[in-house]
Amino acid sequence: MSQNLPDVQNETDRRKIPLKKVGVKNVLFPLDVNLGAGTQSVQAQCDLAVSLSEDQKGTNMSRLVEQLAGLSHNGTLKLDMQKFLKETLKKTQSDQISGRFAFTYFMSKAAPSSKISAPMPYQIIVEYDAGSDEGNSWYDITLTVKVLANNCCPCSKAISKGGAHNQRIEITFEGWADEDLVDDFSVEDLITQLESSASCEMYPILKRPDEKIVTERQYDNPKFVEDVVRDAVKNLKAVHEWHFMGYKVSAQAFESIHAHDAYAETEVFFVEDEAS
Amino acid sequence: MSQNLPDVQNETDRRKIPLKKVGVKNVLFPLDVNLGAGTQSVQAQCDLAVSLSEDQKGTNMSRLVEQLAGLSHNGTLKLDMQKFLKETLKKTQSDQISGRFAFTYFMSKAAPSSKISAPMPYQIIVEYDAGSDEGNSWYDITLTVKVLANNCCPCSKAISKGGAHNQRIEITFEGWADEDLVDDFSVEDLITQLESSASCEMYPILKRPDEKIVTERQYDNPKFVEDVVRDAVKNLKAVHEWHFMGYKVSAQAFESIHAHDAYAETEVFFVEDEAS
Amino acid sequence: MSQNLPDVQNETDRRKIPLKKVGVKNVLFPLDVNLGAGTQSVQAQCDLAVSLSEDQKGTNMSRLVEQLAGLSHNGTLKLDMQKFLKETLKKTQSDQISGRFAFTYFMSKAAPSSKISAPMPYQIIVEYDAGSDEGNSWYDITLTVKVLANNCCPCSKAISKGGAHNQRIEITFEGWADEDLVDDFSVEDLITQLESSASCEMYPILKRPDEKIVTERQYDNPKFVEDVVRDAVKNLKAVHEWHFMGYKVSAQAFESIHAHDAYAETEVFFVEDEAS
Amino acid sequence: MSQNLPDVQNETDRRKIPLKKVGVKNVLFPLDVNLGAGTQSVQAQCDLAVSLSEDQKGTNMSRLVEQLAGLSHNGTLKLDMQKFLKETLKKTQSDQISGRFAFTYFMSKAAPSSKISAPMPYQIIVEYDAGSDEGNSWYDITLTVKVLANNCCPCSKAISKGGAHNQRIEITFEGWADEDLVDDFSVEDLITQLESSASCEMYPILKRPDEKIVTERQYDNPKFVEDVVRDAVKNLKAVHEWHFMGYKVSAQAFESIHAHDAYAETEVFFVEDEAS
Repeated sequence: MSQNLPDVQNETDRRKIPLKKVGVKNVLFPLDVNLGAGTQSVQAQCDLAVSLSEDQKGTNMSRLVEQLAGLSHNGTLKLDMQKFLKETLKKTQSDQISGRFAFTYFMSKAAPSSKISAPMPYQIIVEYDAGSDEGNSWYDITLTVKVLANNCCPCSKAISKGGAHNQRIEITFEGWADEDLVDDFSVEDLITQLESSASCEMYPILKRPDEKIVTERQYDNPKFVEDVVRDAVKNLKAVHEWHFMGYKVSAQAFESIHAHDAYAETEVFFVEDEAS
Repeated sequence: MSQNLPDVQNETDRRKIPLKKVGVKNVLFPLDVNLGAGTQSVQAQCDLAVSLSEDQKGTNMSRLVEQLAGLSHNGTLKLDMQKFLKETLKKTQSDQISGRFAFTYFMSKAAPSSKISAPMPYQIIVEYDAGSDEGNSWYDITLTVKVLANNCCPCSKAISKGGAHNQRIEITFEGWADEDLVDDFSVEDLITQLESSASCEMYPILKRPDEKIVTERQYDNPKFVEDVVRDAVKNLKAVHEWHFMGYKVSAQAFESIHAHDAYAETEVFFVEDEAS
Repeated sequence: MSQNLPDVQNETDRRKIPLKKVGVKNVLFPLDVNLGAGTQSVQAQCDLAVSLSEDQKGTNMSRLVEQLAGLSHNGTLKLDMQKFLKETLKKTQSDQISGRFAFTYFMSKAAPSSKISAPMPYQIIVEYDAGSDEGNSWYDITLTVKVLANNCCPCSKAISKGGAHNQRIEITFEGWADEDLVDDFSVEDLITQLESSASCEMYPILKRPDEKIVTERQYDNPKFVEDVVRDAVKNLKAVHEWHFMGYKVSAQAFESIHAHDAYAETEVFFVEDEAS
Repeated sequence: MSQNLPDVQNETDRRKIPLKKVGVKNVLFPLDVNLGAGTQSVQAQCDLAVSLSEDQKGTNMSRLVEQLAGLSHNGTLKLDMQKFLKETLKKTQSDQISGRFAFTYFMSKAAPSSKISAPMPYQIIVEYDAGSDEGNSWYDITLTVKVLANNCCPCSKAISKGGAHNQRIEITFEGWADEDLVDDFSVEDLITQLESSASCEMYPILKRPDEKIVTERQYDNPKFVEDVVRDAVKNLKAVHEWHFMGYKVSAQAFESIHAHDAYAETEVFFVEDEAS
């Protein structure tokens, strides 16, 4: 930087308008991720932004990309990223920071009868919000996990002479935690609980004996999207033990009989329980 | 319905889990829209959902599509949809309702010198939340408007012998209102204010004399995404007069020098002003 | 243009490289469309490009947008666009032209028992290629129609004690024609034939007696994606009479038991028949 | 398979309609990829389909996923996949096979002055078509590489007192080869040639001295999308030496002054050269 180039970003701003988020979006980087079951190489879409005080004209965006590149080269994306966020806050001299990492995550999954296994894809988004304000500091994590499964319609089954419409569904969990999130929390356990809330879960490879099991399980276990969400709430008990403070869970069914989707959603908060 | 078919949705549910939203998503319908400057035919992506009490197994989804179809055939999508939402709540015997309508909206726009005009596209999302709970009723509108424009980088201009990198940007306004939103609120005025926050606005058709004006205006008016957001806040004064209670405004620049985007965002709340 | 601005596009290029397509992409415009059953307002994504001779530096892109705007304001998008394309070729002094118009198209559709009707969405893409070369001129149309329907798996039904997995499918027709395409060709007839190739077609609104019919029809009529494509070929006889020279038809099933899709495709050419 | 389950797919079909492609689409799998510069772990979207003779009802889809899973677990995706395709043809008793693999690929890239490096993303699609018909066999590869860069508009620069509009562009190469494609072909060399066709290439991280270089290089090197395509043709000489038989190259500019894109494309065939 010996050229003495003008540094416009460091100029003083007189509009008196602080900004909540300034940063980079849609940075594609390879990352090593550890979500409780060993390290996996993923290709992540990364956002990283910091707050900007009212008297500063701009943020040093390249520093944010450098921080992400450091994460990419050296580190592991664990759910606990406090060190990374604090370091980035310090380097950018900001009060607040938010990061978002979205990627496909694979788990090996075996068919129910043939036991043939292959990687099954899941969509994961991890978001962080951290900072300090007048002595208070915070560190919040939002974890989103998207699982594909299927549901068989109870109404269709009840009114028809044979068969029942069924379809691919997407179950989405979005959980909120702070630094108390337990260390040994396993995303893979969470995925298993979400999958078991559907009429039947999915498998990458199904031979005919597997397909027979899956078809019958689905037909014997009809569920509206409403039922999938309610059964997810019943299954997600461990989420409280992992110290999530609350969560939203939804199910979206790509209806085989409609060009539109069916949808159900609910929210559960543990805060009141903890207060008592 | 004379067939006496079983009605599974009306059965009693014993899991004691109320649902916040149950409904249909991604229903594509043609709609007539009036956002303050006459009626326009659009093709909208519609979501409509109601709450479900803990003792009922399911919602009548087809009734929600019928309600949307009625809106499509007979009505106009104005920002004030209280009548439609109340009627839908009554028909579904629910306490809460939420609707979302996303569509492309066109405004004719003339080039600065040649005055040749053509339709310019904008992305609009209107969301409604309404209901009543223990005597309190509410009616909330969230209006999202997405405007394309461009910015010229002040740092790039200051440090370089000639030129400056510039790029397409997306400016997003998301405003929150209740039933006090003024009747004569015009989305088209809002769009004009957002466009004027950029280095230069966009036009569908530019002849060479127009392109000269646009290039020079952009270069004479360099702005970071931070500046675009701050100038938007300065321009958006009318938003308070239209009785919005607050808003978020962001700018996302599809950087011509990077594969990733630059981003800035802030929120403004008018609630405290109103309390005083 | 009285400013005597330099006209770089009209300069001579010495690289000796002619270009096949130069133009504009992703222009969003409202259009009036007539596909054989009256006029409908749609919101189209338009591409328009012309060839560029080896000795010319650039094309006048704004003229292409002006041509599209003229189509938008005054005209109707019929399948026969020869006049529009010839006029655009003349204005741009080019030898070849290609246009692409993609939009959602609605047809009103009534449920099988309740007869309640609402708009059903279809995705349409119309592509044109025209030009003249050493005395030969051509005018080619490619029409793509995408229809959503569903299929019930014959294998799943045969091996299971009850039920059968079924899912939403997308059937895509892509047909090739020249100026001999018959004048009274109806896209709506084509849509009807594609829908009847599935296990069961879709409806926007289904009351319970309708859902019973749809479920039973689907279950009584199991088809692989292979069967859907073969039955489409059997149904699409009129396509030859409409003077299409050939077509590709495919079916993609969003498998309810897998995170991936099943797919089948075939092509039919009428050229040899006509030669005989 | 000891259950003696019915095997519907193996039944005889009497419609006399052979199918060109039957298979699976959008299978997400982790893959190890070697494109000429060592092995890299990517997350690929995979399609695999085979032909189906007119007398067979269906294809064994699970076998295709098993083949892909074998590729995922054991192998390396090189451009030469002849062994994999032949094995899959044999297992499915088919005449023709087509495969498609789409993924993000990273190359480390250093800024021009600061030399700070980070991963730069590229989109790659590799498609294979192979088979045999009446004694003739074929093995075709289509390689698509998408590179982001930028262009500065020569017209805008020439007519304006200062500055020039510039923007992000996507340059797409699509090359066709058969089994003669040279063994030591390097996708990374191809990427370098495409990037050097733009006004200026992109870098993941730019400090101010880097941004100065990039801005000035872009401004000193103005190019229409037409110029980018023509310069790509001039740069892509090695493509012939690598034994590609021809290619298409295009440039799409996300115009900073328009809501739509500018586009140019051309095709080059080496077949005639080889015939002479």
